[in-house]
Amino acid sequence: MSAPLGRLIGLGTGPGDPELLTLKAARYLAEADVVAYFAKRGAKGNARTIVEAHMRPGIIELPMIYPVTTEVHKDHADYINPINDFYEDIAKQVEDHLRADRTVVVLSEGDPLFYGSYMHLHVRLAHRYPTEVVPGITAMSGCWSATGVPIVQGDDILSVLPGTLDENILAERLVDTQAAIIMKVGRNLPKIRRALAEAGKLDRAIYVERGTMANMVIAPLADKADDIAPYFSLVLVPGWAAKPGQDLGFALQMTEGLV
Amino acid sequence: MSAPLGRLIGLGTGPGDPELLTLKAARYLAEADVVAYFAKRGAKGNARTIVEAHMRPGIIELPMIYPVTTEVHKDHADYINPINDFYEDIAKQVEDHLRADRTVVVLSEGDPLFYGSYMHLHVRLAHRYPTEVVPGITAMSGCWSATGVPIVQGDDILSVLPGTLDENILAERLVDTQAAIIMKVGRNLPKIRRALAEAGKLDRAIYVERGTMANMVIAPLADKADDIAPYFSLVLVPGWAAKPGQDLGFALQMTEGLV
Ligand SMILES: C[S@@+](CC[C@H](N)C(=O)[O-])C[C@H]1O[C@@H](n2cnc3c(N)ncnc32)[C@H](O)[C@@H]1O
Ligand SMILES: C[S@@+](CC[C@H](N)C(=O)[O-])C[C@H]1O[C@@H](n2cnc3c(N)ncnc32)[C@H](O)[C@@H]1O
Repeated sequence: MSAPLGRLIGLGTGPGDPELLTLKAARYLAEADVVAYFAKRGAKGNARTIVEAHMRPGIIELPMIYPVTTEVHKDHADYINPINDFYEDIAKQVEDHLRADRTVVVLSEGDPLFYGSYMHLHVRLAHRYPTEVVPGITAMSGCWSATGVPIVQGDDILSVLPGTLDENILAERLVDTQAAIIMKVGRNLPKIRRALAEAGKLDRAIYVERGTMANMVIAPLADKADDIAPYFSLVLVPGWAAKPGQDLGFALQMTEGLV
Repeated sequence: MSAPLGRLIGLGTGPGDPELLTLKAARYLAEADVVAYFAKRGAKGNARTIVEAHMRPGIIELPMIYPVTTEVHKDHADYINPINDFYEDIAKQVEDHLRADRTVVVLSEGDPLFYGSYMHLHVRLAHRYPTEVVPGITAMSGCWSATGVPIVQGDDILSVLPGTLDENILAERLVDTQAAIIMKVGRNLPKIRRALAEAGKLDRAIYVERGTMANMVIAPLADKADDIAPYFSLVLVPGWAAKPGQDLGFALQMTEGLV
């Protein structure tokens, strides 16, 4: 039996703007036999939307529909069991294509190995099939670039904090860093706001919703009147603003020049 | 007097592989009047090398040659004064082009606002001229993608630590995080190695040199026999490996499948 020719490609699509795809991602999409992507039932999926212009006619599409929504808490057995079965099931579906010598591109919003669902396929398949990961522009890079605020320089430490963490942990971590990114905002926004206030950094926090997409929102978090945030939102706490003689007014003022 | 038409574009080139340029970066390079880039005396500069295939004939090149090398400590007045004069001087040179209505692309390796020298031009010019920042694939994304090791998932915290920090600070930070990236390795490697050992994480650290470039080196840091590291190197401490039932052997084993 000859070695299988199927290849697995974890492909970062960037955060939303289709022009933030890399040249390599565009080439791999043009060469792929199968394009697999995660989506919620009834929705197309953000990653799939981003690569729309690169879908060649006749390519096989493999939507991978999440079995559960975030309504069940993720540490609860009702969530863990179905989600594990789901990853096993889609790994088998992808593997069937690989065994048929097809190149399977798995889309991943932002960067695949940075909090991405693609990782669950990767750990099940990458040691058994030729695999390549194409890095993508992370949501945080897309968001700080859109605001124009320098995020870290020199000896600054950057802490990337999931907004799912407990309030007191978030507050401690926010005190103890020059710059921070808070991911997974959504329903965690009220808690994140309190943690930033406790850490004395609410006045420096910038809220970014749907960064780099057509309907992007950028605002100082302190000015955001409600606590409603979509899944695609994060909070930036720039380190540069912590430098003597510079404050967020200075940083945000710069964004006025941004086109 | 009409508004100036000159535009400043901070453009991320990604970490080394020219195919990791974004589609937007390629388009802006094709449209630019001037391409400015940082370089050391006598060298072409990594960012300029990455975009070689996108330099159209007749484009104006503006090399910005650092006045000092890392031989002088960066907190020393002999470093700070000349480097500040340098940033003022190149900001004026870029501004002359902007006032002449030219679009100036400033190349930045990786992502411009993430520890990039471009920030020093940005803070001097972005509030006075139309400015756009094009995010780039960061060195860390390029490196973890090349190793194929999932870096963070779920509630993991990621700490990005400059290798220039003191050994005890590095060690403390390494204990207190799921995943870490240590940037600016170079001559700091012996200290970084000690800090990782103190934190009990040396066996999980992966050394990546010239990530995504043709002469890339990937190795478990514990297996690296010498303490010689170039400027373009960093250390990854994956969070995924910290999950029960999974260890670095598992993670690195996956990279064997990588093409
Ligand atoms: C499961 S993580 C995936 C991260 C992604 N792999 C990356 O590289 O950035 C999803 C979180 O990323 C953030 N995110 C993703 N896209 C975003 C966007 N366009 N604007 C703001 N935040 C975004 C949100 O915080 C969201 O909850
Ligand atoms: C001044 S910082 C610039 C970071 C860059 N703006 C980014 O987005 O990653 C330079 C440091 O980035 C890291 N670096 C840059 N390119 C790299 C590469 N190709 N491989 C490994 N490390 C790299 C090294 O740690 C280096 O000391």
